[in-house]
Amino acid sequence: MLGRPFLALGLLLCGLSFVEFLFAAADATVSDENWQGFLLAAVISGLLGGGCVGAFWTAASDKRFDLRSGFVLTALCWTVIPLMASLPFLFSNLGMSFTDAVFETISGITTTGSTVLTGLDHLDPMLLLWRSALQWIGGVGIILMAIIMMPFLRIGGMQLFQLESSTRTEASLHARPLALINSIAALYLTLTLLCTAAYALAGMSTFDAINHAMTTLSTGGYSTHDASLGFFNSTAVSWAAIIFMTAGALPFMAYLKSFSGEPRAFLRDPQAIPFLAFLLAVSAAGALLLSDEGGGDAFTRVALHVVSIVTTTGFASEDYQYWGAGFIGLFFALTFIGGCAGSTSGAIKIYRFQLLGIYAAAHLRRLHSPSIVQATSYGGMKLDREIGLSVLAFLSLFVGAFSVGGFALSLTGLDFVTAMSASATALCNVGPGLGEIIGPAGNFASVSDMAKWILLGLMLLGRLELFALLVLLDPYFWR
Amino acid sequence: MLGRPFLALGLLLCGLSFVEFLFAAADATVSDENWQGFLLAAVISGLLGGGCVGAFWTAASDKRFDLRSGFVLTALCWTVIPLMASLPFLFSNLGMSFTDAVFETISGITTTGSTVLTGLDHLDPMLLLWRSALQWIGGVGIILMAIIMMPFLRIGGMQLFQLESSTRTEASLHARPLALINSIAALYLTLTLLCTAAYALAGMSTFDAINHAMTTLSTGGYSTHDASLGFFNSTAVSWAAIIFMTAGALPFMAYLKSFSGEPRAFLRDPQAIPFLAFLLAVSAAGALLLSDEGGGDAFTRVALHVVSIVTTTGFASEDYQYWGAGFIGLFFALTFIGGCAGSTSGAIKIYRFQLLGIYAAAHLRRLHSPSIVQATSYGGMKLDREIGLSVLAFLSLFVGAFSVGGFALSLTGLDFVTAMSASATALCNVGPGLGEIIGPAGNFASVSDMAKWILLGLMLLGRLELFALLVLLDPYFWR
Repeated sequence: MLGRPFLALGLLLCGLSFVEFLFAAADATVSDENWQGFLLAAVISGLLGGGCVGAFWTAASDKRFDLRSGFVLTALCWTVIPLMASLPFLFSNLGMSFTDAVFETISGITTTGSTVLTGLDHLDPMLLLWRSALQWIGGVGIILMAIIMMPFLRIGGMQLFQLESSTRTEASLHARPLALINSIAALYLTLTLLCTAAYALAGMSTFDAINHAMTTLSTGGYSTHDASLGFFNSTAVSWAAIIFMTAGALPFMAYLKSFSGEPRAFLRDPQAIPFLAFLLAVSAAGALLLSDEGGGDAFTRVALHVVSIVTTTGFASEDYQYWGAGFIGLFFALTFIGGCAGSTSGAIKIYRFQLLGIYAAAHLRRLHSPSIVQATSYGGMKLDREIGLSVLAFLSLFVGAFSVGGFALSLTGLDFVTAMSASATALCNVGPGLGEIIGPAGNFASVSDMAKWILLGLMLLGRLELFALLVLLDPYFWR
Repeated sequence: MLGRPFLALGLLLCGLSFVEFLFAAADATVSDENWQGFLLAAVISGLLGGGCVGAFWTAASDKRFDLRSGFVLTALCWTVIPLMASLPFLFSNLGMSFTDAVFETISGITTTGSTVLTGLDHLDPMLLLWRSALQWIGGVGIILMAIIMMPFLRIGGMQLFQLESSTRTEASLHARPLALINSIAALYLTLTLLCTAAYALAGMSTFDAINHAMTTLSTGGYSTHDASLGFFNSTAVSWAAIIFMTAGALPFMAYLKSFSGEPRAFLRDPQAIPFLAFLLAVSAAGALLLSDEGGGDAFTRVALHVVSIVTTTGFASEDYQYWGAGFIGLFFALTFIGGCAGSTSGAIKIYRFQLLGIYAAAHLRRLHSPSIVQATSYGGMKLDREIGLSVLAFLSLFVGAFSVGGFALSLTGLDFVTAMSASATALCNVGPGLGEIIGPAGNFASVSDMAKWILLGLMLLGRLELFALLVLLDPYFWR
């Protein structure tokens, strides 16, 4: 059961090592500040990766890639790779502690975007690019996981999004075409290039444009400036961000279908239009509220932050906590929403709210009319009780994880609002929380090490949709 | 479908009218302050009740008492009766607004215990007794509803607690013995008398003892003093409260079984022992934390407030918000727990957490081993997917109602902590929230009328376990 996952991990670590080598070479050329760190990280990652490949090459060749291997691989990838990817921070000239290095990396690779670094404006550009690259790679990793792995593992209702060609047998994971992975990667790259061009046209420097494009498409939210998008103070930049954050939160399969003979794929997608309508409605309502309190282009300001939080990106151009009490509640609530399944965004995601509505309505009707026959469906797919249990168990456990996380954080000494919003923003992979410490104008540097490890755990738990990590806790899993 | 519910409502209103007459007579004798108000309320309630009985006496005689009538009756009882029961406040010498009168009544009858009144120590004693009586009557109403009505309506997993004699057919509601109602009422009265005696022995005046006994057993939490139990500053009073709040939150069917040949009914009950163990563990852990910060009998102080919040009573003898940041998070989390099903307590309730655990564990196991056959049970009762959907839908909607409520309250201008904790405390029928305004040392007088109506709605929604109200929103229900 462990052969193939470790082989796959080894190959991915070799890939990581290769990227770290490139960064070492670039750093030596560009800034000459941290190339030794990147090089050392590349060597360690390469040795570990090569070791895994060597050790498991033959052992893995004759094993089936079954369900449990899938869970083990998922958990391995999202713990070992971040640890290796944190080495460039640890070996850098920033003097980061182990906790801070791991925090910054996991926050990056899960596309959360909470940072412990300040003085970004004067950081070694290759370290800034490394942060952006972590989010960019994490983002495409999430899309692939959501499209290929999650439906196979039947996590939290994701079985609804099984590819049509899939036959729902365990063997089908073998059959997935490498072509699909290539198409997704090409699409992701194209969107990133378009976003880079948009940012550059809006006035960003090429370096800023590349970095922000990487963290926009991945709905990650790392910036190259402490003031985040506030640094640019530009409506054009805001709109480029709004458009491409939204693009990152739409279902990537719908793009692929659009380009392959199904021009109306987005219209027929059960998530896309409701998601866009939701963003528009909330932004418009917020703009009405905000313009009462005075202040320029209210719609752009509200839309930027609504889209940023709902897509779980986390960019901010100002501190929306001062917009009035209603807005604090609004942004807290929006933290939990998330984008579409099969995108880079985190949190609960639109389709689970839709399914909750469908199941709750069916349940209500069955309460007063038990004999009624109801056929429920979602986007043309028939819904059964198994999917219902799956989605509702996800929702309940998600809230449970948020509560336990918030309570644990409050025990570390954080005040109530900081603790609760930190738990929410980490679990939902958003980035900023509420309050003065971790709000949109703050950062996570001053939080205790214990709190950082709790937050790390929540980020991974949220990113892996809870169940992919929790199954490993079942003793029966290991028999 | 409306005949029998209106007939039952009419009879209950006649009962209310009778009690209001008694209060009018007593007020005229004791304080001579508000007997006119009670009398006017009695006349109005009596006329309305008599009218209903007269109008529906014949119409109802030949109709079946089916599921829909059950829902209509439940909703009618919990809206019309509180409105009529608010008249003594409205007609009193306190000059209360309509909103305040209805708020105080619904907060009473749902056994929430949030108050808009101050200066309780000098209030007309008959009005104080009226507040206590509302909670006491509400409490027994909830037990009867939980034992007889909710399992019949299959609300939120309550079908698990169908009486064993029931055959789960619609006709079985007819067959329920009046004897059961009498036993429960006698038990409730006995426990209240025991509690009165305990409070009196602990040093309360007879009047205080009676009032607090009524609001303790009903896990309501109205007091006759602004300082709540803090007025008495007595360890003996604290322990009397701890014991009888717990008694009110235990499953009442287990008492009845204990007295009728099943001496180990509490041991065999799936909720009771875990519930007691939970209270003990949290109190002990809290006492350890609190004694670090210095201060007398830490266990009593923590246990009083833990039991008060978990049983959804809401008594307080001091402001636990100053015990340290961890405690604020703890008490917020405890707000959602609740006591046992079939008791007077509100909130989510212990058995739903147990069932969430059972279903989540089974779901996790099915994820990695789809072919495994699992038989899940709870307290000897077999669990099926229908019950799972029921409980998980309840949990998800409960959190949804809390979030929407909190957001709506924050739009009325309340700060984030006040809005969120007010939503939680109302929905869970607890009483105090967090922050300076509505915390254990505050009250709800200064909250806006709009916020009060939102809170009213949340109290009713929580008290009726969401679904009993929400079914009425389904257009299909009325066809």
